[in-house]
Amino acid sequence: TEPSSPNVRTEIPGPKSRQLLKELDRIQNTGAVQFFADYDKSYGNYLVDVDDNCLLDLYTQIASIPIGYNHQSLIDAVKNEDNLSTFVNRPALGCYPPRDWITRLQTSLLAVAPPGLSEVQTMACGACSVEHAQKAMFIAFQRRKRGGAPPTQQELQSCKTNELPGTPNLSVLSFKNAFHGRTMGALALTHTKPMHKLDLPQPKWPIATFPMLKYPLEDNVRENQAEEKRCLEEVEDLIETWKKKSEPIVGIVIEPIQGEGGDNFASPQFFQGLQDICIKNDICFNLDEVQTGCGVTGLFWAHEHFNLKQPPDIVTFSKKMLTGGFFYRSEYRPQEAFRIFNTWIGDPSKVVLLEAVIKVIKRDNLLNRVSEIGNYLWPEVEKIQEKYPDLISRVRGLGITGAVDFPSPDERNKAISKLLSKGVNTGACGESSLRLRPTLTLQKQHVDIFLDRLNSVCQEMS
Amino acid sequence: TEPSSPNVRTEIPGPKSRQLLKELDRIQNTGAVQFFADYDKSYGNYLVDVDDNCLLDLYTQIASIPIGYNHQSLIDAVKNEDNLSTFVNRPALGCYPPRDWITRLQTSLLAVAPPGLSEVQTMACGACSVEHAQKAMFIAFQRRKRGGAPPTQQELQSCKTNELPGTPNLSVLSFKNAFHGRTMGALALTHTKPMHKLDLPQPKWPIATFPMLKYPLEDNVRENQAEEKRCLEEVEDLIETWKKKSEPIVGIVIEPIQGEGGDNFASPQFFQGLQDICIKNDICFNLDEVQTGCGVTGLFWAHEHFNLKQPPDIVTFSKKMLTGGFFYRSEYRPQEAFRIFNTWIGDPSKVVLLEAVIKVIKRDNLLNRVSEIGNYLWPEVEKIQEKYPDLISRVRGLGITGAVDFPSPDERNKAISKLLSKGVNTGACGESSLRLRPTLTLQKQHVDIFLDRLNSVCQEMS
Ligand code: FES
Repeated sequence: TEPSSPNVRTEIPGPKSRQLLKELDRIQNTGAVQFFADYDKSYGNYLVDVDDNCLLDLYTQIASIPIGYNHQSLIDAVKNEDNLSTFVNRPALGCYPPRDWITRLQTSLLAVAPPGLSEVQTMACGACSVEHAQKAMFIAFQRRKRGGAPPTQQELQSCKTNELPGTPNLSVLSFKNAFHGRTMGALALTHTKPMHKLDLPQPKWPIATFPMLKYPLEDNVRENQAEEKRCLEEVEDLIETWKKKSEPIVGIVIEPIQGEGGDNFASPQFFQGLQDICIKNDICFNLDEVQTGCGVTGLFWAHEHFNLKQPPDIVTFSKKMLTGGFFYRSEYRPQEAFRIFNTWIGDPSKVVLLEAVIKVIKRDNLLNRVSEIGNYLWPEVEKIQEKYPDLISRVRGLGITGAVDFPSPDERNKAISKLLSKGVNTGACGESSLRLRPTLTLQKQHVDIFLDRLNSVCQEMS
Repeated sequence: TEPSSPNVRTEIPGPKSRQLLKELDRIQNTGAVQFFADYDKSYGNYLVDVDDNCLLDLYTQIASIPIGYNHQSLIDAVKNEDNLSTFVNRPALGCYPPRDWITRLQTSLLAVAPPGLSEVQTMACGACSVEHAQKAMFIAFQRRKRGGAPPTQQELQSCKTNELPGTPNLSVLSFKNAFHGRTMGALALTHTKPMHKLDLPQPKWPIATFPMLKYPLEDNVRENQAEEKRCLEEVEDLIETWKKKSEPIVGIVIEPIQGEGGDNFASPQFFQGLQDICIKNDICFNLDEVQTGCGVTGLFWAHEHFNLKQPPDIVTFSKKMLTGGFFYRSEYRPQEAFRIFNTWIGDPSKVVLLEAVIKVIKRDNLLNRVSEIGNYLWPEVEKIQEKYPDLISRVRGLGITGAVDFPSPDERNKAISKLLSKGVNTGACGESSLRLRPTLTLQKQHVDIFLDRLNSVCQEMS
């Protein structure tokens, strides 16, 4: 069973973690390692490290643990003899799919498909999900352009050596502070920290401004509306400019809530406006829900909060979904074989685990619980903000996902490390934000521990 | 236990596969699907499909099954309670590695590291292995260029919006007919079929000619030497040209044997020459062993056949290794945290399976067996070539990996489909080659079945 509270015995990283760090450093760069974890001892919302520190984990492997450590349903799925061959024999899914693959898709991904979308392509991580979704956009754009005609011989030949016309000049629009992954096509859309980007050649595609809302929202309604309007106009301008310079924008990729870039929210009206622009220009509207999907906002997909007039064209996912992939409107289905393809195209053993996760989400009514817990959590954090207005600002959250800002990166880092020493693991994002990314099984008692520790930290820091 | 011979009961795909195909087609493009497989019933070198056809599998999930279906050692690894939490809790390896991670790396990847390389970065598939290896090259190149100075403020700022100087103009040299993956940075190095490349924007980097050797090798020594010399000169020319146009080549990426592009071999001297060029120009020599690693040539890494004067700078792997990743010389280690990074950076549960695979390779002396079986297989295929010289040409192989050519793509496809109907599953590559990619547990009796069926097919086709 889950511990009732955190228990910190050493500084973190403790002596055992530090010893292991030294050993790992002979094998690779360890600059990002926080501590070594004992996953056998971890349970529920608590992560235990090798020095026996027991931490309330509100960051959960960079937002990728859906229902807590060592959940019984996941253990059962791995132990179930019927699933054994799925863990042992990883197939080339595009060529030799398993007997039960369609049933698996139906009870997992299709059971939670965004409203209006019924096609799905599995992938293995966030980056390949974004990259192959991008390929689907390019392919659909060129197909529309050809208007039914087959590609020319010249196109077929020239593409093999990355030349025009088979390798066309096309672009994808992304947003400042966006994060979509680390491979070249995904990294081209990513605009967060220099250490993610420096020294790496990338296509120089258009980048629009993501609205930077002022908080509290209710006191800044007019300003925020103006900010979003300005951002939408910029998008329209960029579409025109890039059409003229013959590197047309084939689609817009955007996170419903910018995660890595600082937990930046925009209004449903903003996303409705973006979709309208895509429809008007006949380009793809791609929502990247790698970090916002799987129920963290209280609805299964964050974009369900937006009241869009039609489904987004593409919705990418990974992290808590355990498998990567993307849902898409059928016009984004490639018509030919082997276009969206690789050796594995995902991993059925991850879909087995997702199936178990989705059963638990439904059985335990976790989406409602996430909404309720969010409704309790964020107003309480606002109370702390009121107490320490020089330390905490821009409290924002939806369901269990959200963040607060500190006056500087240093103070943010100090707060994270103080929280850790008090037994609560949180994460950084943006310039100086502290973000929460707990599991869907977060409960009031966990929130109360966090609030208590955050209060102490603020007291110590002010 | 393993069946003693194939057993084909229906045409392939059979009625059950065709029914499932129809259902899957509602969910996604199914153009590449051959048939649906029953992985519970498959065993060893035999793959059973949903229509109960039992096939000798010499293609093994696009060369990604190392020691056969449902190998007892892999079953034991999944069932072992000590491994349970590794299958249930996927960590963010770069931040919170598991207690036993270093031991795992030592008993798996480091136990089979290419001679002279002792650092390794795990990844999750071939594409991200290639992409992050590429990033390591760019980062090392720019670091050398700065000569110890830190990046400028201008570099740090400009890279966030993909602009100069932080996003530099650098290139990577690849070869005609190369295949390195499907995400943008990997696809830029890939030059195989139009359906892999068409419509997708990519950096227009230099592409050199991979030597196209004439067979039989012993009758074409002088010509082949000249061909390889020409190719090396082209590489040197390209390095000069691209230096002048200020988009310098930071490294060369090459497969020890081109797989997807047609099982193209080059001599050890060619690879030695390439390495010399890299050393002379102070650029990275990156061998992509995704398809040639894990013992398929009789040595654990194909480049061990090359007698290189020093280790390659980077060796990428995936497929039979079950985990992706790359080994690298320490100058390619990024000095800062979060540069070669993503949420998962691989998957310890795959490393658990790899550990079991490596134990079996050693226990059963599989590398020697692969050499022996190769020494038996290819001369026998040459005998068939002698009998049917108008049908089969360019027999080439090393260990269990290799191919033969047919006069045309159509005849190649016909041969593959005839072999399938006789119970032997093989694959296509290049223009008109048929390739073998069996498991490391292939034995003489399997080879004899293949030879027998290939003989009949040739008889029917001539
Ligand atoms: S790029 Fe996603 S798993 Fe490799």
